[in-house]
Amino acid sequence: MFDLSRESQVPLVEQICERMTALVRQGQLGPGTRVPSIRRLARQIGASPFTVVDAYERLVARGLIESRAGRGFFVAQRRPSVPLTAVEALPDAGTDALALARLTLSQCADLIPAGSGFLPENWLLEAVPASELTRLVKNRRAQPWLPCPPQGLIELRERIAARLVHNGIAAGPTHIVTTFGASQAFDLIARILFSPGDAVLVEDPGYFVLFEQLRAHHVRLIPVPRRAAGPDLAALEDACRAHRPRAFFMQTLLHNPTGSSTEAAHCHRILSLAEQFGFAIIEDDVYGDLHEGPAVRLAQIDGLRHVIYVGSFTKLIGPSLRVGYVAADGALVAQLVERKVLSVLSGSALLESFVAEVLDGGRYKRHLERMRARLARMRRDARTALESAGIRFEGPHGEGMFLWGRVPDGVAVDDLVRRARDHSILLAHGALFSCEQGCQQWLRFNVCHSDRPPLIEFLRESLRAA
Amino acid sequence: MFDLSRESQVPLVEQICERMTALVRQGQLGPGTRVPSIRRLARQIGASPFTVVDAYERLVARGLIESRAGRGFFVAQRRPSVPLTAVEALPDAGTDALALARLTLSQCADLIPAGSGFLPENWLLEAVPASELTRLVKNRRAQPWLPCPPQGLIELRERIAARLVHNGIAAGPTHIVTTFGASQAFDLIARILFSPGDAVLVEDPGYFVLFEQLRAHHVRLIPVPRRAAGPDLAALEDACRAHRPRAFFMQTLLHNPTGSSTEAAHCHRILSLAEQFGFAIIEDDVYGDLHEGPAVRLAQIDGLRHVIYVGSFTKLIGPSLRVGYVAADGALVAQLVERKVLSVLSGSALLESFVAEVLDGGRYKRHLERMRARLARMRRDARTALESAGIRFEGPHGEGMFLWGRVPDGVAVDDLVRRARDHSILLAHGALFSCEQGCQQWLRFNVCHSDRPPLIEFLRESLRAA
Repeated sequence: MFDLSRESQVPLVEQICERMTALVRQGQLGPGTRVPSIRRLARQIGASPFTVVDAYERLVARGLIESRAGRGFFVAQRRPSVPLTAVEALPDAGTDALALARLTLSQCADLIPAGSGFLPENWLLEAVPASELTRLVKNRRAQPWLPCPPQGLIELRERIAARLVHNGIAAGPTHIVTTFGASQAFDLIARILFSPGDAVLVEDPGYFVLFEQLRAHHVRLIPVPRRAAGPDLAALEDACRAHRPRAFFMQTLLHNPTGSSTEAAHCHRILSLAEQFGFAIIEDDVYGDLHEGPAVRLAQIDGLRHVIYVGSFTKLIGPSLRVGYVAADGALVAQLVERKVLSVLSGSALLESFVAEVLDGGRYKRHLERMRARLARMRRDARTALESAGIRFEGPHGEGMFLWGRVPDGVAVDDLVRRARDHSILLAHGALFSCEQGCQQWLRFNVCHSDRPPLIEFLRESLRAA
Repeated sequence: MFDLSRESQVPLVEQICERMTALVRQGQLGPGTRVPSIRRLARQIGASPFTVVDAYERLVARGLIESRAGRGFFVAQRRPSVPLTAVEALPDAGTDALALARLTLSQCADLIPAGSGFLPENWLLEAVPASELTRLVKNRRAQPWLPCPPQGLIELRERIAARLVHNGIAAGPTHIVTTFGASQAFDLIARILFSPGDAVLVEDPGYFVLFEQLRAHHVRLIPVPRRAAGPDLAALEDACRAHRPRAFFMQTLLHNPTGSSTEAAHCHRILSLAEQFGFAIIEDDVYGDLHEGPAVRLAQIDGLRHVIYVGSFTKLIGPSLRVGYVAADGALVAQLVERKVLSVLSGSALLESFVAEVLDGGRYKRHLERMRARLARMRRDARTALESAGIRFEGPHGEGMFLWGRVPDGVAVDDLVRRARDHSILLAHGALFSCEQGCQQWLRFNVCHSDRPPLIEFLRESLRAA
């Protein structure tokens, strides 16, 4: 009944659990059946009774078997459900913004994530120093195990402030509030600044989850076209006159999805408009660290007067460390901390210590350099491959992790996205990145996954047919 | 200049960082001063140049020194601010709800946290198996490093479902959504269910942060007095008739702050009222696992028809693992997942894997047994000590981590709380636990910290004077 392997990578305890689970699921051990006693099974498989005790305790905790006092262990009457991977269907295809977000977070290994917003895990893990993390986890008296101050762990805020100062942004640790990723930063900001009906400017195309977040606050989204040099200034000024906006969300550097960075002269002009029309600028800089060479950020020129700066380590250190932050002036910081307490109470000292550890020393800097070099190489390869399949690109090669490509007219792109999903390919339809159903003929590609032969083959076939 | 110890527990790299930081902070190395070269310092202290490189990189990342190409390292022109612990003042005293929440999360080691809502870290850490966590952190190909599905990691939801089934609650993994603590669960539920002006019932006294969370949603809070046997049924029925509430937030077991548990007959009656008047019950069960012996929960009787069940591992496994969850019917689960994506995108696979690991096997069960035994002992000691100082208690000894004690009439309790803070004692004023400024003469005590001599001495003195 139990056929275990001592050479396997899988620990013996887990082998027993897996075997027993299979026997129950396949019906060979029905509900209420008695399972072998600890002693008997240990003898049978030649293992220590402690190994079997450990396995049985796990099976009890998993609800598969139950212990009856003095009588031994029995298969549970109420069987746990089938593994969720089988029953919990993923969204059909990335045909709406939330479905795309969920698909990119799904840990679904057989999907080619050409439309994903994440870097490959193995790139990110190099930034995470295993020995240091192990030390943090093992140190039982250490800070990672304590409650986390709602404004954020002091060490982490000090490290973030040092990075900001390095980028020319005059912010100290008191100007920083940590968040669960940039997403929570946007949510907290929206909850503080906006009332239903307020006009809020967004870049179009722009970050699709942000559009949905803002819509949930019942604001009016006013699109400002994004060009290669930054937001379209004439359209921005017109929108200011027409709508008297409360705020403008923009990505100065390595804009998602187009990959473009805003020119310095543009930055000055945008800040003048903010001054003149009295709106706040939320500068979303989650990709900025991937920018090569000197860069101008709005927060650097403005000094956090009109600019609320949002950063994150989710994209560049790892998605499982949900750590982002806001840098803002003192009055807003106090409101952000209060809102944060009211929505999640506090962050996780464990996650925040991890990020502080990664930022300490030259590790993060070297990690960024490695990632930039890789991205540059993969951009070239992906663009060449996608062009060979019929996707067209405008402008120069650019930087960062996204390519914004055009599908020939006549191809129904929503249908293309759906068919791609049947081929286990995740595509991100440009229309999701527009708050006005524009960009119908566009796709956003993650350069790390977009030179894969099945993707290129699928696109070539599909575009040729059209 | 550098006087380092090889016998110290502090790694050499950190000793160099600390020493250099001290020299800069004390002004012995002014801005722009050149610091010893890597080679020179390594020779001077008899360490490897790699050790010094590591230390200097950390100091650069911390903003204390800067490297000038080809010229060496110099003390930064712009000095990092004084350590935040010195400048970032904590709220004065726990005189309002958010100040109390922030104080209990402050990692302030010299405070006697008699008013805190957390168990001592060293109790909690026993539940966290360091070797398993180290294994999780080290395994570079493992799930903890991947993005986390927004509904929650499947393994964790399976373990939670097994626990719920064990408690008689018929819920599978598909009924569960993970959250950043119970706080986020309440926030998501409020965002889905409530419109401004809705009547929402709360227990009075009850959990003070919840009151503030609900107020932020502009609902009308209707207090239902909490008695020893559960919510006051006559008052509940009157409130239903008068206000047609949308929902009722209650803690069936080990109610915070009174420590009382609801009788089974009460549970049935409350569910009948929910049926009759059509309101949802949010059953907050964050302390329930500390309950000794058989217990009746609303979700167990109701089967998630009127009940939305909220659990958390923050209180019982550790505050730095911000993992809670909601169990609810399928339609609400879909809305919760959507709201979660729009507010934080997803949880942390690392934190969720940690909790799944703790729940696996007999570890969590043994941990609870140990905690129950300790709490029972500390309750007796704390109650005896507090009574000797003049605090009065009603009813039997009870269970759980809180004691709800009465201060003699004539003592101004807000003043007492403020003076306690001057003695480095954190007290939790009963008035914060009432949404109508009731409970003025009450204090909530954490039994783990409430037999400490300075606290008892302070109370004895203060109450005698009155």
